[in-house]
Amino acid sequence: MGVACPDPLALALAQARAAAALGEIPVGAVVTDARGVVLAAAGNRVESARDPTAHAEILALRAACALRGEPRLPDALLWVTLEPCAMCAQAVAHARVARVLFGAYDPKGGGVEHGARVFRQPTCHHRPEVVGGLAERECQALLRAFFRARR
Amino acid sequence: MGVACPDPLALALAQARAAAALGEIPVGAVVTDARGVVLAAAGNRVESARDPTAHAEILALRAACALRGEPRLPDALLWVTLEPCAMCAQAVAHARVARVLFGAYDPKGGGVEHGARVFRQPTCHHRPEVVGGLAERECQALLRAFFRARR
Repeated sequence: MGVACPDPLALALAQARAAAALGEIPVGAVVTDARGVVLAAAGNRVESARDPTAHAEILALRAACALRGEPRLPDALLWVTLEPCAMCAQAVAHARVARVLFGAYDPKGGGVEHGARVFRQPTCHHRPEVVGGLAERECQALLRAFFRARR
Repeated sequence: MGVACPDPLALALAQARAAAALGEIPVGAVVTDARGVVLAAAGNRVESARDPTAHAEILALRAACALRGEPRLPDALLWVTLEPCAMCAQAVAHARVARVLFGAYDPKGGGVEHGARVFRQPTCHHRPEVVGGLAERECQALLRAFFRARR
C-alpha cells in the first residue's frame, strides 16, 4: 500500500514554497506512516483560507485523519519545516502522533522547545519523540527570504 | 445586524449536551461579537468527525471566521463550557479574540490556567482577557455525568 517517500522534509519544503507563492508565511508539513508512505501534505493557508487554525500541521493532520477515517494516528510521523506552535503541538498530542521532525527552531512562536513547551507539561497526555533542526539552514533561509521581501 | 444573545454560555451548554448525545465529550462553545451577537456555536466532534482538532472552540472559531471572511476576530468573545486546552488557547491567540469566558476549570487537560498556560508565555503574541468559573457547577456536572455513564 504505497511507496515510502525518500525525503518527506523535501516535500514539506515544496509545500512551504508553494505557500510563500500565495503570500502565506512559508511553512509546510507532511504526515507519513511508520514506513514513510505519505498520508498527507499541506502548506500554511491562514490568509487564503481566512482560517486562523489553517497552519500546515493542522491541515496535514486533518487530511491524514480524513484519509484514515480515524481521529488518531499512533503510527504516524509529522514532518514540518518550522517548530510547531502550541496549537499544532497540542494537536499532535491529541492525534497521538509517534514522532515530530521539524526544520527551523522558532524562538518567537514555537511551542515545542520554546514558550508553552507543550510536550514537557505534566498535563500532556501524549509525548511524541521530537527531532529538531533537520535541514535547518534551508528551512530558515526560506522564512528569512519571505520576511525580507515583505519589509 | 443581529440580536444580542442574553446568555451565550447557556447556548454553549446546549451545544455540549448535544455533543454528549453523540457520544462526544460534552464541551460546547459560542463566539459572539462585542455586543453579544452570536457569530457561531459548536460542540465537540472529535469522534464523529474523526478529526483530532474538532474541539468545540476550534469549530466555533473556524465557523465565525468563515462567516466574517477574516482569519482574525479582534472584537470577538469566546464562550466555552470547559477551560480550553493548549491547542484551543493558541488558536484563540492566533485569532486575536478579545475575551475568553469559560465554565469548568480543567486541571488535567486545560492550557489556560493549567499546564502550558499559553497566554502567560512570554512568546504569546496576543493575550485575551480571561474569565473562568462561569456556571461552573452546571458545566462540571455535565462532564461528570458523561464520564460516570461511560465507566
